[in-house]
Amino acid sequence: MSGRILVINPNSSETVTAGIDAAMAPLRFAEGPGIDCVTLAEGPPGIETQVQVDGVVAPLLALIRREPAAAYVIACFSDPGLGAAREAAAAPVFGISESAMARALSLGERFGILAILPASVKRHRRYVRSLGLESRFADSQPIGRGVGELAEPAATLAAMTEVGRRLRDDEGADVLILGCAGMAGYRAALEAELGLPVVEPCQAAAAAALGAVRLGW
Amino acid sequence: MSGRILVINPNSSETVTAGIDAAMAPLRFAEGPGIDCVTLAEGPPGIETQVQVDGVVAPLLALIRREPAAAYVIACFSDPGLGAAREAAAAPVFGISESAMARALSLGERFGILAILPASVKRHRRYVRSLGLESRFADSQPIGRGVGELAEPAATLAAMTEVGRRLRDDEGADVLILGCAGMAGYRAALEAELGLPVVEPCQAAAAAALGAVRLGW
Amino acid sequence: MSGRILVINPNSSETVTAGIDAAMAPLRFAEGPGIDCVTLAEGPPGIETQVQVDGVVAPLLALIRREPAAAYVIACFSDPGLGAAREAAAAPVFGISESAMARALSLGERFGILAILPASVKRHRRYVRSLGLESRFADSQPIGRGVGELAEPAATLAAMTEVGRRLRDDEGADVLILGCAGMAGYRAALEAELGLPVVEPCQAAAAAALGAVRLGW
Amino acid sequence: MSGRILVINPNSSETVTAGIDAAMAPLRFAEGPGIDCVTLAEGPPGIETQVQVDGVVAPLLALIRREPAAAYVIACFSDPGLGAAREAAAAPVFGISESAMARALSLGERFGILAILPASVKRHRRYVRSLGLESRFADSQPIGRGVGELAEPAATLAAMTEVGRRLRDDEGADVLILGCAGMAGYRAALEAELGLPVVEPCQAAAAAALGAVRLGW
Amino acid sequence: MSGRILVINPNSSETVTAGIDAAMAPLRFAEGPGIDCVTLAEGPPGIETQVQVDGVVAPLLALIRREPAAAYVIACFSDPGLGAAREAAAAPVFGISESAMARALSLGERFGILAILPASVKRHRRYVRSLGLESRFADSQPIGRGVGELAEPAATLAAMTEVGRRLRDDEGADVLILGCAGMAGYRAALEAELGLPVVEPCQAAAAAALGAVRLGW
Amino acid sequence: MSGRILVINPNSSETVTAGIDAAMAPLRFAEGPGIDCVTLAEGPPGIETQVQVDGVVAPLLALIRREPAAAYVIACFSDPGLGAAREAAAAPVFGISESAMARALSLGERFGILAILPASVKRHRRYVRSLGLESRFADSQPIGRGVGELAEPAATLAAMTEVGRRLRDDEGADVLILGCAGMAGYRAALEAELGLPVVEPCQAAAAAALGAVRLGW
Repeated sequence: MSGRILVINPNSSETVTAGIDAAMAPLRFAEGPGIDCVTLAEGPPGIETQVQVDGVVAPLLALIRREPAAAYVIACFSDPGLGAAREAAAAPVFGISESAMARALSLGERFGILAILPASVKRHRRYVRSLGLESRFADSQPIGRGVGELAEPAATLAAMTEVGRRLRDDEGADVLILGCAGMAGYRAALEAELGLPVVEPCQAAAAAALGAVRLGW
Repeated sequence: MSGRILVINPNSSETVTAGIDAAMAPLRFAEGPGIDCVTLAEGPPGIETQVQVDGVVAPLLALIRREPAAAYVIACFSDPGLGAAREAAAAPVFGISESAMARALSLGERFGILAILPASVKRHRRYVRSLGLESRFADSQPIGRGVGELAEPAATLAAMTEVGRRLRDDEGADVLILGCAGMAGYRAALEAELGLPVVEPCQAAAAAALGAVRLGW
Repeated sequence: MSGRILVINPNSSETVTAGIDAAMAPLRFAEGPGIDCVTLAEGPPGIETQVQVDGVVAPLLALIRREPAAAYVIACFSDPGLGAAREAAAAPVFGISESAMARALSLGERFGILAILPASVKRHRRYVRSLGLESRFADSQPIGRGVGELAEPAATLAAMTEVGRRLRDDEGADVLILGCAGMAGYRAALEAELGLPVVEPCQAAAAAALGAVRLGW
Repeated sequence: MSGRILVINPNSSETVTAGIDAAMAPLRFAEGPGIDCVTLAEGPPGIETQVQVDGVVAPLLALIRREPAAAYVIACFSDPGLGAAREAAAAPVFGISESAMARALSLGERFGILAILPASVKRHRRYVRSLGLESRFADSQPIGRGVGELAEPAATLAAMTEVGRRLRDDEGADVLILGCAGMAGYRAALEAELGLPVVEPCQAAAAAALGAVRLGW
Repeated sequence: MSGRILVINPNSSETVTAGIDAAMAPLRFAEGPGIDCVTLAEGPPGIETQVQVDGVVAPLLALIRREPAAAYVIACFSDPGLGAAREAAAAPVFGISESAMARALSLGERFGILAILPASVKRHRRYVRSLGLESRFADSQPIGRGVGELAEPAATLAAMTEVGRRLRDDEGADVLILGCAGMAGYRAALEAELGLPVVEPCQAAAAAALGAVRLGW
Repeated sequence: MSGRILVINPNSSETVTAGIDAAMAPLRFAEGPGIDCVTLAEGPPGIETQVQVDGVVAPLLALIRREPAAAYVIACFSDPGLGAAREAAAAPVFGISESAMARALSLGERFGILAILPASVKRHRRYVRSLGLESRFADSQPIGRGVGELAEPAATLAAMTEVGRRLRDDEGADVLILGCAGMAGYRAALEAELGLPVVEPCQAAAAAALGAVRLGW
């Protein structure tokens, strides 16, 4: 059981967790490791403010401490509690935002991020800088929809396409990153619309976790 | 009452709070604003890990919400909860680390940080990067003493002097920053030993808060 | 008398000096330090070229040498003679540009500068780089009015608002800096128009000087 | 057959290819994709100069064009022909150097590279810069042994340990990267000696390729 | 004869070589060194992809080895084989792209590059980064014409003027670089149109080579 | 007469001017442009402080205005008045520091600067940053001799060799820059001692000026 990768959705939306779980399918091998996706019951319906980011750290650490795994994925694009989880966990921990940006480095020259709300952009800029990846960063731009609104497919895809087009045409992005775990279902459609590789961050993190489990990092 | 600056020591050490309070003396004017230093009862004795940094955010926000002030200072060098506090507070919030680095910019060409423990260094490097101040940063080096050990003056000053000398001579630092609120009492002695300006971060933050209160930022 | 902060307007415009003096009001405490604003008689009416920037250094240093003070503020956004003044003065010296940018770091994620003329922009870019603050810099854009034209309120505020809006909406600035001491009177109006914090650089420098005088840096 | 990952050693040393092949073991799943390691017959015995780096590009592209695969790994730390291969190949191409650095980002704060010869260091510095990863880079330091000498275990491990210790203690590296595919066999021993995570770059690239094949990037 | 500067056009277009040769006129002194412009017979008609960039390295090195000179200029804006040529040649080697950017540093605050095709832009960005010149770089933008189309003067100049204007007005470029050796004939006309200094990269490299020959670098 | 390059030594030392003049020999062509080296009578014997740097700007501009030339070189490593001179002069102006760094970019991966005194180092660091060349900069280290002491050959060369060796071995410099016009005579000896290319900055600037005069930049 402890050979599994535990993917934790720190918001309390089961819809989001289900979307993440579906995105994991290509990474599941018969011989393992298993990939379990769980919802953090104590999380808010969506994580849209820094107060919410910081607020999920305690229950997230508690969950990590009580649920053994071979690797953990924190499936919120703010990478809440990533540093603390790395101290607390007995196994490697992956943040989906950090993992997505690392993955994007070999898919293009400059990555653009599709943010949910305007307030996310400021956090993204600071986080990109903290990772030292500024010179590979085109921009982050909001689609103007909160986590709860991501479930409406037509309007969400339209907004994502418009923002993705701007990132590509005006900011020189040649690879895009979905800036919220709740966008997981839109990767293929967005790639088809824009002709650019699109990184779904939960997939990026789980793929990295898979390698880590097998290679013992 | 709400005209005051509230300086919050997020660890539970009253000794540290007393040291901060003493460092505030030069910034107290008869006509105000007052500067009140309080201890976060829920904090750990010292904040030395990321788990502890993240762990104080919730009680810190609660304290800020229940204690009105014209400005807040978070008096821990990890600036715990700074972004969240800025969302939650109805007044400006200053982190002592961010404030100290901003202040150091006009005191020298490159600042060095005296960290407490080796684990702090990694956090400092990332934080400097997140602030975009890397090219003004000489280095952070640990004195090898935890928060609790800072109260022993002779050994602490000796360790600080040795590390400060290395930052000055080997890393080209021409201004030093005390990397822990618990070091507040050593500023003058260290300046005398090394002949460099030394920024005590609680003073830097409170001085900035003073300006902010008067100027309405 | 030497306990005062001496704010030197290096251009010869008494109108500009009066505007600076008015901006100092909130920083004056009964118990001091006093804040005296003086005009450099030898300066040009406005400092708009590098020749003028360099040309005021000699009389500025002479003034600093003959006028004792506890701290000096050089109140021109090109920070003329800042390095030389720091060598020559027996007290701390603050440049309003350097101080404004340091202050902006804790007010937002990216600062934008309202320049007077197109030629200023190039100087601002180089100066931002020399301070190592490029990754916090949104842009500098000119309002297209020389120092002498800043006294006409309606046209000046209109131009500032338009440029400020562009810095906010197109360049991602979330804090603005007034790029000329002659703009001091427009801070409140611009904040009201744009809903962003606006740093008046003479205030930023004088507030820093106030802290420096009290804290002995 | 085209579902495989093709790992190409661009030097002609079968010993090096065998070492890479052994390092792939943990990444082989029963259900595939297969991981085939091949030697570029036209390559030199070791790639130690820029002339050699550029010299292998043509035969490498020819091999890629004639050998179908679901993903390619170029297993030389200079990432020879990576850009050209990405134009030429009908599938994703991974360079081991780029992949190793991307992987290191989530294993530590600063990566150090163990180079083979002094001349490699200059290339590493430039490449790190071209990837925009300079602020996460501790240093590259040579162990002073050419590709052909890496097969002598005792002396090689001793040299790697000494350089790794310097990178850790003097340059602040908290994760190390093996700077040559010929070092693949030393990962575990070096981790044991130094207590730091060590990235074997062929593994890093193959793990990324595995994810890419499954996820369709 | 070996006192000459050898300028090598790595594409096989004699028209391009003739344009380069004409641009050399002002740098020819009676007392030498001579400046000889040659065409690499093995090159493609134009170098527009990374495959082509890498493909010319081998014949270019062969040419350098058989043709003695006091200095070499590689006259393609991708600087193909520059590192390898520096290893292989017994004399200094200049790349026109590197030389043009170095020259632009003292002509303006930010340089813009006129690229031929969209695919060039990505290469330019990476190269600028590898040279560490990102903070002086406005942007690279394509004129949308391949090497072969540069010989049509009216359409080419019109496209260059439009892109140059955008680089100047929207990206803040105050010096422009011609991003292809085939644009050599348009320098004067573009300077006249836009009022900015324009660096023709073959001239920049040959001027640097001239100094190098005389000064013994 | 106005076809000449005017090299201005802004300190009043004729010995320094004579050294510069000797260094110009290889750049003098029979057909011109002539290279005249003049001493700024109003300059101090050596320029070692920022006060002195700023103090020579006025007489330097006066000299430039009264002495026509096709290009000017300001032969002090602090590039005093470079920006102002570019505004004031009717011809291109080159600073020796800026020119030396631009030249060093194609001679190596990282340049080191031999400074005269410790105080110069801080100025160099800031200037490198203002030029955006930080990532190509190894370090600046003082030889501990003022301008007046540079005329003693044995002790000066010994000090330069020691510092150059440290820059090469400890800081990774592979090209050195002489950080004072008064060091002009030591280039060849230092190259012989250290086996690295050494840039004499007056030569670098004059060579660039030569190209500029011929090419009409």
